[in-house]
Amino acid sequence: MAHKKLFIPGPTEVLPDILEAMSMPMIGHRSKDYAALQAELIPKVQKCLYTKNQIILSTSSSTGLMEGAVRNFANKKVLACMCGAFSDRWAKIAKANGKEVIELKVDWGKAIKPEMVDKALSENKGEIDLVLLVMNETSTGLMNPVKEIKQVVDKYEDVIMAVDAVSAMMAVPIYTDEWGLDFVLAGVQKAWSLPPGLAVGTISEKALERAKTVENRGYYFDFLEFVKRSVEKNQTPCTPVISLIGALNVVCDRILNEEGLDNRWARHERQAKMVRDWALSRGFEMFPEEGYWSVSLSCIKNTRGISVADLNTELGKRGKMISNGYGKMKEETFRIAHMGDIYEKDLEELLADIDDIIGT
Amino acid sequence: MAHKKLFIPGPTEVLPDILEAMSMPMIGHRSKDYAALQAELIPKVQKCLYTKNQIILSTSSSTGLMEGAVRNFANKKVLACMCGAFSDRWAKIAKANGKEVIELKVDWGKAIKPEMVDKALSENKGEIDLVLLVMNETSTGLMNPVKEIKQVVDKYEDVIMAVDAVSAMMAVPIYTDEWGLDFVLAGVQKAWSLPPGLAVGTISEKALERAKTVENRGYYFDFLEFVKRSVEKNQTPCTPVISLIGALNVVCDRILNEEGLDNRWARHERQAKMVRDWALSRGFEMFPEEGYWSVSLSCIKNTRGISVADLNTELGKRGKMISNGYGKMKEETFRIAHMGDIYEKDLEELLADIDDIIGT
Repeated sequence: MAHKKLFIPGPTEVLPDILEAMSMPMIGHRSKDYAALQAELIPKVQKCLYTKNQIILSTSSSTGLMEGAVRNFANKKVLACMCGAFSDRWAKIAKANGKEVIELKVDWGKAIKPEMVDKALSENKGEIDLVLLVMNETSTGLMNPVKEIKQVVDKYEDVIMAVDAVSAMMAVPIYTDEWGLDFVLAGVQKAWSLPPGLAVGTISEKALERAKTVENRGYYFDFLEFVKRSVEKNQTPCTPVISLIGALNVVCDRILNEEGLDNRWARHERQAKMVRDWALSRGFEMFPEEGYWSVSLSCIKNTRGISVADLNTELGKRGKMISNGYGKMKEETFRIAHMGDIYEKDLEELLADIDDIIGT
Repeated sequence: MAHKKLFIPGPTEVLPDILEAMSMPMIGHRSKDYAALQAELIPKVQKCLYTKNQIILSTSSSTGLMEGAVRNFANKKVLACMCGAFSDRWAKIAKANGKEVIELKVDWGKAIKPEMVDKALSENKGEIDLVLLVMNETSTGLMNPVKEIKQVVDKYEDVIMAVDAVSAMMAVPIYTDEWGLDFVLAGVQKAWSLPPGLAVGTISEKALERAKTVENRGYYFDFLEFVKRSVEKNQTPCTPVISLIGALNVVCDRILNEEGLDNRWARHERQAKMVRDWALSRGFEMFPEEGYWSVSLSCIKNTRGISVADLNTELGKRGKMISNGYGKMKEETFRIAHMGDIYEKDLEELLADIDDIIGT
């Protein structure tokens, strides 16, 4: 089948030389060769995430680490900040693991504001010990103010905040240590621009101390084991997805040595602006609340009433693919991802194609 | 670094054209292209495993599905059949997930016999509803009689047996339906000869019915969700490791269309015999109990008192790698894997090299 360039919010487009890196010959995961790879990789990931915290390399999708977060950190109730499909799902994951959940819910397209979190924590003082926050809600194209929310959470002793940065990480800077983030997770198939199958997490000392107090953490996502193995042996507790870990190492080199972090963040800002400007100038509106538009993907309100399905079919013939609206918003919105290894030139071509198909 | 040919029990050697398949361009996991891939793959896996049961494609190591088994199937106590490192670990996984475990333990190198399981189930009648059995204990090079044990388990109503076939699947036939196996799991980095990061499971109707009665199955390894998504949409519940699923499809074609299942089983029998004959003729002994020697890897007792570490260092210089003994048996045994895409010619070269290094 002919490849379609992916402007969808994951898996994102993967460049040929990164795909080539996926073909690395196999090495034993308990060998010196593997330990050398992990030892080389970890400091690069730490640099990308502005942190000295331990790094977790989980052979799973992001959902695995979302489950890990609720199993490792919650002794009391969990406050789930819900503003779209993926943050709603985190609440579901917590319940599926026997945790009691307090729901802080806003309409899809609205942001979670610091004062809402403050109110919820204050009303349930002493009862909540974990806050779940999705940084970039992929279903609505909305970015929550993580830094400001963490400042509010810090007023409450013994409350940890876990951040799902799935479609944010490597599209915008996450100043993990400066913001005091306890746990941040993402899959590599978003702005890291790798094929899916690996999730990356950072975990603070405070979060590790918490995990030590939680019973029934399970085995596969027991964060204490990840850190122990990493520190002692530069290994993972279970057999890791070696090809992706090798390819992540190649991606880190490209990001740190070729593009540079600051250039990367600036490029993503430009790309987001390009798509927003296009949408607004073509008679569409942005779906999410103003001021919280995502930098990694744009969720555009289908105010012109085009057929999103037909648009994508036509784009497919031209070797491109965007996303329809998520779930119930299938035809009401459409989503264009502009993160990772999608560049300005790619977006110019895409937007010209869309103009050509639906008219300006 | 120069590649070493892997005669270790996982990851096993991966052939160049399979590594190349890992470089497939990315496709959306909710796209028609992905659904077509999964729809094409599932019947092939079913054919390889002689089953009409549903197939689970888990983006995890085998350990993930081991955790899934205890979370999905156990309402009562779990009987863990323990005969080595990996079967011991399954008991630990069950406990880490809050399950009560009855341990059926034999010395490392001894097999689990049907009558032992019968006795344990009979002594705890009505209290056990899940039996955990490792088919091929990788740490001791021993193969348990799965078929015969299942016949015994079948005497007890409402008892399900989960089989870890990690280093057995695709090295020996597993007649899933004929033997009435409820759940069988394996990672693809063993005799499937793929890089690690994907685990395959088969699940029976009876096992699915059981899962429906179990609370707190969690989310990431909720088998009901896997089956629902697979049946309804040819998808997985969470983002899957697409590159490995694509490569598995290529491997299935090779196995079914080029080698043929019967030829494959016969080749593995010949390869096992070749290594055993070599070991015995060189003054070594087989570590496990006679009659239960593994067909996929040989665990050889170091009766000649060679330095296993030195042997592997020397082999490394010749571009090859075997395994030392597992954990506490590091120097007491050594292990040669002869499964998957390791062929007789490879083994001839390896054994000649070992002869050359340690003397015949």
